[in-house]
Amino acid sequence: MVETMWRTDLALEVRESFPEDHKEIQGVILTKERKEEEKIETTRVEIKDERGERAMGKPRGTYITIESSYLREKDESYQKPIAKALKKYLEELSGGLKGKKTLIAGLGNREVTPDALGPYVVDNLFTTRHLIKEFGEALKEKYEMESLSAIAPGVMAQTGMESSEILKGIIEETKPDLVIVVDALAARSTSRVNATIQLTNTGISPGAGIGNNRKALNEKSLGVKVIALGVPTVVDAATIVEDRMGEALGKKGYSEDEIQRFLGELDYHSMGSLFVTPKTIDEEVKQISYTISEALNACFSNIYNNGSPERA
Amino acid sequence: MVETMWRTDLALEVRESFPEDHKEIQGVILTKERKEEEKIETTRVEIKDERGERAMGKPRGTYITIESSYLREKDESYQKPIAKALKKYLEELSGGLKGKKTLIAGLGNREVTPDALGPYVVDNLFTTRHLIKEFGEALKEKYEMESLSAIAPGVMAQTGMESSEILKGIIEETKPDLVIVVDALAARSTSRVNATIQLTNTGISPGAGIGNNRKALNEKSLGVKVIALGVPTVVDAATIVEDRMGEALGKKGYSEDEIQRFLGELDYHSMGSLFVTPKTIDEEVKQISYTISEALNACFSNIYNNGSPERA
Amino acid sequence: MVETMWRTDLALEVRESFPEDHKEIQGVILTKERKEEEKIETTRVEIKDERGERAMGKPRGTYITIESSYLREKDESYQKPIAKALKKYLEELSGGLKGKKTLIAGLGNREVTPDALGPYVVDNLFTTRHLIKEFGEALKEKYEMESLSAIAPGVMAQTGMESSEILKGIIEETKPDLVIVVDALAARSTSRVNATIQLTNTGISPGAGIGNNRKALNEKSLGVKVIALGVPTVVDAATIVEDRMGEALGKKGYSEDEIQRFLGELDYHSMGSLFVTPKTIDEEVKQISYTISEALNACFSNIYNNGSPERA
Amino acid sequence: MVETMWRTDLALEVRESFPEDHKEIQGVILTKERKEEEKIETTRVEIKDERGERAMGKPRGTYITIESSYLREKDESYQKPIAKALKKYLEELSGGLKGKKTLIAGLGNREVTPDALGPYVVDNLFTTRHLIKEFGEALKEKYEMESLSAIAPGVMAQTGMESSEILKGIIEETKPDLVIVVDALAARSTSRVNATIQLTNTGISPGAGIGNNRKALNEKSLGVKVIALGVPTVVDAATIVEDRMGEALGKKGYSEDEIQRFLGELDYHSMGSLFVTPKTIDEEVKQISYTISEALNACFSNIYNNGSPERA
Repeated sequence: MVETMWRTDLALEVRESFPEDHKEIQGVILTKERKEEEKIETTRVEIKDERGERAMGKPRGTYITIESSYLREKDESYQKPIAKALKKYLEELSGGLKGKKTLIAGLGNREVTPDALGPYVVDNLFTTRHLIKEFGEALKEKYEMESLSAIAPGVMAQTGMESSEILKGIIEETKPDLVIVVDALAARSTSRVNATIQLTNTGISPGAGIGNNRKALNEKSLGVKVIALGVPTVVDAATIVEDRMGEALGKKGYSEDEIQRFLGELDYHSMGSLFVTPKTIDEEVKQISYTISEALNACFSNIYNNGSPERA
Repeated sequence: MVETMWRTDLALEVRESFPEDHKEIQGVILTKERKEEEKIETTRVEIKDERGERAMGKPRGTYITIESSYLREKDESYQKPIAKALKKYLEELSGGLKGKKTLIAGLGNREVTPDALGPYVVDNLFTTRHLIKEFGEALKEKYEMESLSAIAPGVMAQTGMESSEILKGIIEETKPDLVIVVDALAARSTSRVNATIQLTNTGISPGAGIGNNRKALNEKSLGVKVIALGVPTVVDAATIVEDRMGEALGKKGYSEDEIQRFLGELDYHSMGSLFVTPKTIDEEVKQISYTISEALNACFSNIYNNGSPERA
Repeated sequence: MVETMWRTDLALEVRESFPEDHKEIQGVILTKERKEEEKIETTRVEIKDERGERAMGKPRGTYITIESSYLREKDESYQKPIAKALKKYLEELSGGLKGKKTLIAGLGNREVTPDALGPYVVDNLFTTRHLIKEFGEALKEKYEMESLSAIAPGVMAQTGMESSEILKGIIEETKPDLVIVVDALAARSTSRVNATIQLTNTGISPGAGIGNNRKALNEKSLGVKVIALGVPTVVDAATIVEDRMGEALGKKGYSEDEIQRFLGELDYHSMGSLFVTPKTIDEEVKQISYTISEALNACFSNIYNNGSPERA
Repeated sequence: MVETMWRTDLALEVRESFPEDHKEIQGVILTKERKEEEKIETTRVEIKDERGERAMGKPRGTYITIESSYLREKDESYQKPIAKALKKYLEELSGGLKGKKTLIAGLGNREVTPDALGPYVVDNLFTTRHLIKEFGEALKEKYEMESLSAIAPGVMAQTGMESSEILKGIIEETKPDLVIVVDALAARSTSRVNATIQLTNTGISPGAGIGNNRKALNEKSLGVKVIALGVPTVVDAATIVEDRMGEALGKKGYSEDEIQRFLGELDYHSMGSLFVTPKTIDEEVKQISYTISEALNACFSNIYNNGSPERA
């Protein structure tokens, strides 16, 4: 098992980090699917038991990765297949959205662009819980609407409270059946930045991928089913240095062990709080957030799909 | 009692709306104080009993208005007296901040400039609850720090939840002793826009001043002491039309009754969702929010006052 | 001729302000066209001679108004007919866009929402001048591209320079054949706010509609053909007070002359720098700016129409 | 001479990149000054002749670097010494600001945070050219005001025009005596990001430090004296990989030549458009821009220093 594992939030990249000869890892099942015409690649990592958990450093459960460079594109025609895939896997991981009341929590700091994905997604959601409460079941049926509420709780430095505390309180008060937590992640591969969605039924630890340890957000801690939807928006600087240096040394014929010893000489201190992003990060995070909001909106209401201007 | 009363959220303006000969209103006490050198005028309206409540159309309690055109000024020297006044009255209305755990809720929609005051104030708060939890009483004493947490819950159209539901849940989970709700208000007088702070121990009904009816946020509904801090950022269009028209007709010698009949002919429909603001509203709301944040920060921590760069 | 005329920038509203019995005004021709299915109403005011100029208080030329409440809607299907109409009238007023090099200037202050239309439009333009310079005529033909450049010069309080000085310098240096100046206007009717586009071949005086006097931007001052594209984003407070008061008094049977005497009693000072806007102004100005950018983009390049991701 | 030199825009870092034994470089003079109490370090690199130009890869002239980690701090007391230093060196490089008419150009793209420094600086400038034109010499003398104008011309992808074309036109029309171009730079050392100001009398090539080639902005091209004021806001990803890898290999005893061969194996393609920034880049760029604006304002007007609210 590699030591750099902690630097990615993507189960897929943890799986990829094993040496090539580890074709099989006990307790972990990997399947891939590529829809050529839609330029979407889907990977499913299933961690089945404790051996899998130990090997992967992640809790057992299903991790689905949707990869498409179209995710950051403005063109609406590219977004349809992504929305379709997102709906399909949300349905699967939740055991069906129909009849459920869902709360979407957009984690992260809206003042810090690569961390703002969650709040931005929430900004564009079409929530319905209050409409159904006011206008009743007739509205719900007419528009095939499910109850959706949403919150961007902010980060602890802003609120003085754990996201888990805020969400627990809101869940206690409003009783959703399902919580979807949306968060920005860190990836290892620069090509996956702003081009990948990870869905998992294990929930998430906010900020885990970028070195922070805060309280878990999962079914155990929140008391309701939790699906995490994450998008990598950064690679941390140490990761890119390690990876490029490892590759360069590998090409010169050094062994994995020798490379690890070279990496041991790296000045990690100078890279501590630095992240690698594309220069267009502001625009890309806005675009990908919008794509995800629209895909989520289509899961919870038909009123929205039909382009009706009745949006509140 | 005038019929236009509902269009202001300021108790002071409700009191002013009575005809000049109503020097005294049963159950309502009005006191004014002007600090010439600091260009601050403070007005206190106390509604003592049921007669006062009926006359004023507001619940009994204390309403303190701090007026200063410096509120929207950038210059820091002007802000000190405002911060001092704010602290004094918060201490009074809360029965003392020392030893209390406070939650500040910034109500309103950050995407709608005149409604964004609450979220903007929360953006600049220096919360301490998590620091005290992590570093303990020593830190608290060293910096004369009181526990402060903060949230901008968003508006119902965004979240699908009442602000009261969100706050109730968070209060249940985090147990503050005091809640301060910060919100944008509507005024009747254009000169008070972005130049007035109203503090009251009665709590508020979010959006009440601009025609919406949502659930109350007060000690009864939330279960803890609630102070409302509001700033008028708009005058509604109907109010300015009525007031200017009333004045013009008054100058021509028409009686109050005749004026009311003229007002009855106004096309209210065409003014329904329109508001009057200065053109510099964006900048003014940012500035006044910052002034209020800084004043609030100084109430809850000494670390902050000393310009320490340790802010999280 | 009415005295409130100066408060609207729309030639259409100046024309409407004449009493009903002025069916004809010498030197001014008015024609209307309504496309029911597209919910677009087009009005053309032509000021033919000096009599018309005096009556209207505007220079001779053609003023075309496109009215549609869909202008502020997000739905793209509503935007197509608006784009089509905009292109048609730009072609007419410019004498054909083909083969011309165009500079679009987005006037106004991006920090002041109702004034930010011009800069927002420029933010979303797909400029081509540099691409044609680099890749040559082949590119131009392949994508039916015309040379487009764009600038948001800012306002004098920010730059210390007149917009006319900045534009003159840029025109001198880059030699466009046509300048389109985009600006936010003031309307008299609240229903036209964010729902109307005025095109005119007379150019504009920036800020003229809201009480400022700056230098003209027209063919005479800039030395190239100038088309002004304006959208009313505000009504000034004095206008709405006058209009509603005039109506209410009219319903009570007062004559035009009597109404004017009542209006003479209005406290204009207290309304001086106040404007009436919908509360959703932030979102509406963003949406309408985007609609206009997309319509303009479609006029200057086919690359853009096809949803190609090659945008720089 | 090292091959990675092009990746920094700081003359200081080019000078540092020479091996330790190159104590002296022909035609280049280096002097350092440290004000301990103010935590400011100033370095002056003077390129005197053609040998210096060849060695440094930069045109002859004076390059002054002001380094202070306080540059990104909010506290105003830290900003005074920086403002003082900035004024001193601007006076020196310009040959005196008194009596000169100055135009400040904020280069860069305001939609891309690390590139937005120039536009942000311009947003907060207190321009005076229009005031002096309107109120005359009396105002100028009363407030020790010099004529200042400012423009944020945008980037070529937005405008379709070179910044040099836009500035040439504006200079021709408004005749300033001095142009200060403000731009975001790339550094090699992560510790200098958002903590360094470089001033030079050679002007700049916008974007030169990050791989783009656009037209020069200097006395020769613009026809007036040009001072460039730059702040590094990013390190490019390839630079950090090279530098950390070089260090790690150096510690293992590899020679400079061997290290260069290892670097030759790096996958530069995968790092092409990636940049390394602190996660707090949004806030830091805003803060440093504000600090610079305030420092520049103090150079051109006394009205501003006195906290007068007369700012337009």
